Parts: sequence; C-alpha cells; structure tokens
Amino acid sequence: MQQLVKDLIQGNRRAAARLISLIENDDPQKRELLKDIYPHTGRAYVVGVTGAPGAGKSSLVDCLLQKMREDGLKVGVIGVDPTSPFSGGAILGDRIRMQEHALDQDVFIRSMGTRGSLGGLARATREAIQVLDAFGKDVILIETVGVGQSEVDIVKTADTTMVILTPAGGDSVQTIKAGIMEIADLFVINKADLPGSERTVTEINLMLDMKESDRWRPPVQPTITTRGEGIKELWDALQEHRRFMEESGQLMEIRRDRVRRELTEQVEYLVKNSIWNRVKEEISLDNLVENIVLREKDPYSAAHDVLAEINFFSESGKVSE
Amino acid sequence: MQQLVKDLIQGNRRAAARLISLIENDDPQKRELLKDIYPHTGRAYVVGVTGAPGAGKSSLVDCLLQKMREDGLKVGVIGVDPTSPFSGGAILGDRIRMQEHALDQDVFIRSMGTRGSLGGLARATREAIQVLDAFGKDVILIETVGVGQSEVDIVKTADTTMVILTPAGGDSVQTIKAGIMEIADLFVINKADLPGSERTVTEINLMLDMKESDRWRPPVQPTITTRGEGIKELWDALQEHRRFMEESGQLMEIRRDRVRRELTEQVEYLVKNSIWNRVKEEISLDNLVENIVLREKDPYSAAHDVLAEINFFSESGKVSE
Repeated sequence: MQQLVKDLIQGNRRAAARLISLIENDDPQKRELLKDIYPHTGRAYVVGVTGAPGAGKSSLVDCLLQKMREDGLKVGVIGVDPTSPFSGGAILGDRIRMQEHALDQDVFIRSMGTRGSLGGLARATREAIQVLDAFGKDVILIETVGVGQSEVDIVKTADTTMVILTPAGGDSVQTIKAGIMEIADLFVINKADLPGSERTVTEINLMLDMKESDRWRPPVQPTITTRGEGIKELWDALQEHRRFMEESGQLMEIRRDRVRRELTEQVEYLVKNSIWNRVKEEISLDNLVENIVLREKDPYSAAHDVLAEINFFSESGKVSE
Repeated sequence: MQQLVKDLIQGNRRAAARLISLIENDDPQKRELLKDIYPHTGRAYVVGVTGAPGAGKSSLVDCLLQKMREDGLKVGVIGVDPTSPFSGGAILGDRIRMQEHALDQDVFIRSMGTRGSLGGLARATREAIQVLDAFGKDVILIETVGVGQSEVDIVKTADTTMVILTPAGGDSVQTIKAGIMEIADLFVINKADLPGSERTVTEINLMLDMKESDRWRPPVQPTITTRGEGIKELWDALQEHRRFMEESGQLMEIRRDRVRRELTEQVEYLVKNSIWNRVKEEISLDNLVENIVLREKDPYSAAHDVLAEINFFSESGKVSE
C-alpha cells in the first residue's frame, strides 16, 4: 500500500486533501489509490443536502455539523457546486461561516466544482466520499446546489437525502421539480419565519400523503437556522431515518445497488480502455471520419466497421454481436 | 428506409415531431432511424443561444427568428432546459410569445427537458438537430438555459454560439463563468437600456482583447429586444461569423471533430452492449457484488475478474489488457 493511503488511514489531514485533489485531477494513479483505500471504507454514513440557491443550505449544514460534533461524531463536509468550475479549499459562498470548525481537527471541509463534465463531478464526489470514509469520518455531509438532474446524480450517493425548501410565498409548491420529490428522505422548510411557511408545510405533507408509502414517509421539518429553531428536531429525524434504513435492511440494499453500479462502471472503463488501445494500434479513424463527414457513411455503420476491423465480434464467437 | 423517415424528408411536420419523441424516449428503433436520417443531414447551420435565466433568451431568439424568416430561411428552434423534466410542445417560459410563428409552416419549435441524465439530454439534442436538418431547416436555433457545464455540453453542437448577458449593474463581469467565456462566438448584452450597460460592454471587450485571438474575435453586441434595437446588427454579426467559419475552413474542422466524437460514442455503445449481453449469459454478478459490499474485494479488481471470466483479455491476444 502506498504511503499516502497509509497516512490517510492514520488520520493525516494533508493526505486526505492531497488524495481528493488527485481524484479531481483524474491522476493516473487514481485507480490504484482507490483500490488501496477501498478495504477501509463502508463505515461512514452519507447525508446529502440539496436545494435551490438561497435556500440556506450552508447555514443548515453548519447547524447540523454543530449537533453532530456535540454528539462526538467526526464529520466530513463536501460542498459540490455543479455550476462552478472552481474547487478546493473553502470557496463555496458562505463557507466562510464555517471557519469556526476549521480549527476542529475532527471536521474536514472541502469544496468541489465541475472541472470536466457533470458526470465526472458525480464520480469525483463518490470517490472523495471514499477518501473521507477511510479517513475515519463518521458522517459525511454532501451539500449540493440544486440545478436539476446534476444534483440528483450527486445525491444518489447519499444514505439519507435532505431537500431544503423555503416557504413558497405566493408560489405553489407545484414548482418542486419532479426528480427532487423522488429523492427526498427528509424535507426541510427553512426560513420558516417567512410568510407562507405553514401553507408550504401543509402542501408538501398533502403531496406526500397522496403517494402510497410502503416504505418511509418523509417528514417535513420547518427550521429557522438564524435562531437555531427546528435543528434538534431535524437532527432527530435524520437519526430516525438512519435507524429505519439500517433496521429495515434498506441501507444494505441501496449500498448493494451502488456497488453494482460501481462494478458496472469499472467493467466499462476497462473495456473501453482496452478497445481504444487496440484501435489506436491497428487502424486510423481518419478515413472513416472523412467518409462520415461527406455523408458516404453513417456513424452507426462506421462504428460497426471499426469493431469488425479489430475482430471484436468474430473472436471464436466469444464476444457476439 | 422506413416510412417515417420518408415522410420527414418530404417535409411532414408530424413525422418530425414523432421522430423527436422517439429519440427522447430512447426508442429501440432509434439507431435504425438515425441511420436512415443521416445521409440527409449536413445542410443546416446550427446556432446555440445560451445565458442565465432572465437574460431574455426567448425574446432574442424570437427577434432573430423573424430576421431569418424575412430572409426566407426555414428555421427550427429547440428549447433545451436542463433544469426541467418536461419536454415536448411549447412549454418553455415565454414560448407563448412565439405563437405567431406557430402557424408558419417553415418554422418548427420544440422544447426538450431532461428525462434521464444530462448527458442523455445533450445527446437527444444532437439527435433532434439531425431530424430538423433532414427535415429541411436551413438554420437550427438551440436555446438553452445557462446552468454550468450542462449547457456547455449542449452548445458544443452549435456552429455559432451566442452568449446572452445583461448589464452587470453593480456586479462586475468577473462573475461570467469560465466555461462560458470560452464557448462564445458572439456576446449579446441584452436589456441594454438598463444601467451599467456601457460599462459591461467595455469590460467584456477588454477581457476579449486580453486573450490572444489568432482566430475569431467575438463581437459584443448590445440589444434591446423590446424595441428591436441591435437585432439587425446581431443578425449581421451572426452571418459574418458563419462566413468566417466557412471560409477559414473551421466549420469543416469542428464538424469533423464532432463526427469523430460521435463515432467514438457509437463504438463504445456497441462494445458495452456486446459485453453486457455476454456477461448476462455467462456469469452472475451477485456473488461479486456481495464480496465488494463486504469489502472482501474492491470494485477495481472485481471488474477485472468479470472480464477475465468472459475471456475478454486472453482471446488469442487479440484484445489486450
């Protein structure tokens, strides 16, 4: 095992930071490092926090972080901003408020932005979670800005997902995005001192009651982070969901699904790598590209030709069409 | 060739609408249909329009659409909203304003939302462009809401990309996202009657002058869509960029790159399909998944085992590790 991973497991903060940077930069060593890290993971509980910009996610994460620390839990926070190309350090908007925790050795805070594709960001987040898990964090909070599908992909990694809304005011709750409704295990109505708060809570409860819920019925918790109101109740609800997940066997189930997805991705990664190495060695795509550009061939038939050329299909019938 | 594609090429609107729906729903027939469509594509010029919510994209697209119609061009408009799960028909915000064009047989307007992943949306958009191209549209306008990486992926398909900004007011232009700056061929400062307009134009021009531009220096055009101001100039600038792209050979170059990406994606699609069919036939992943869940194995080594099991690597050395 490499020294960096040893350092990580012994609780070296700089090793954790460095490993996450290597992951973000898609370092060639990444796979080997993750392989060494993997046996040391599986202990941390992952909580996803998502919501529209301005919903007060950071303040809420801050409040929860405090509660967790009071209970003696070691906490990692990953702030993910799919709209920002920046990453590293503490750049997310009001992350400055978290400075009090910055001196706390048992808290690790990190921001990640989109460097490459959004898909890449979701992957890097999953890998950063592994690092913080092996680093010994008990809980890992993933805070992500709500911008549609991207945050849905990111929070898929969470064991409990919290969706933060604010009182709808004049608006109807109907504007909640379809995908968001499905991923929420807990609803938080933050800034509950704003007008329309009670109506929003009622409306969401009604929406939730309309769905048949053989499993878990998400609670709807109003909070006012500025006064610390509702935080204890939220922390209780979060722990209750965790207990539910563990006792019902669903935690094991979603983690198994996640492992299956991960395995699938890794298989495809190896296959793609191998195929392209082979193609690079044996054929040039230039002529084929030219044929497609000139509409003499379509990309679908051309793809088939490429694979025929490297005998991908015919191999003693082993890999069939 | 299938009847639906024949109808499309003969200019049947319902065929166009139906084909785009099939694409969105990832219909099993999709690949065959796209294969038939492909030889009839390559004529349309694709213009991407992106910018933050509220920048006035729809109004601007509306104004440009009118100019294009005055020049006798047939136009397709695809409104892409990565934050919305909705699609079809005319749902995008103020798309209602476009109703005057709805009766115009030479205009085709369509909205697309994110059904599956964002990656899927970018792909579906590319495929919808192919449909409208074969349908006989001269220009295809892609209007997309700016939410970070996702719209960058979507406008990558455009031959000319227009970025719509509004006067920064108190803010500095610095907040323009890094990725956006790189993709813009034309900058539009819309709502140029708002305070700070001139300063915004100046600042962006300064930023553009700082970059060495051996190729194309994006112009910065102020517009006031409510009064139709700056639209003619914008349309001229757009045509000038098109001429530049054609005459410099860059249009051919970016289209070649696009074809290469498309071919790559298709090859990987075929390979993945083939591998998973093979895996499904021969081995069960359940035990392996269980081993990974229990940390007896890591996903990286397990992926390797899967491929070894189906003899992916060893095949007379044909596909090498």
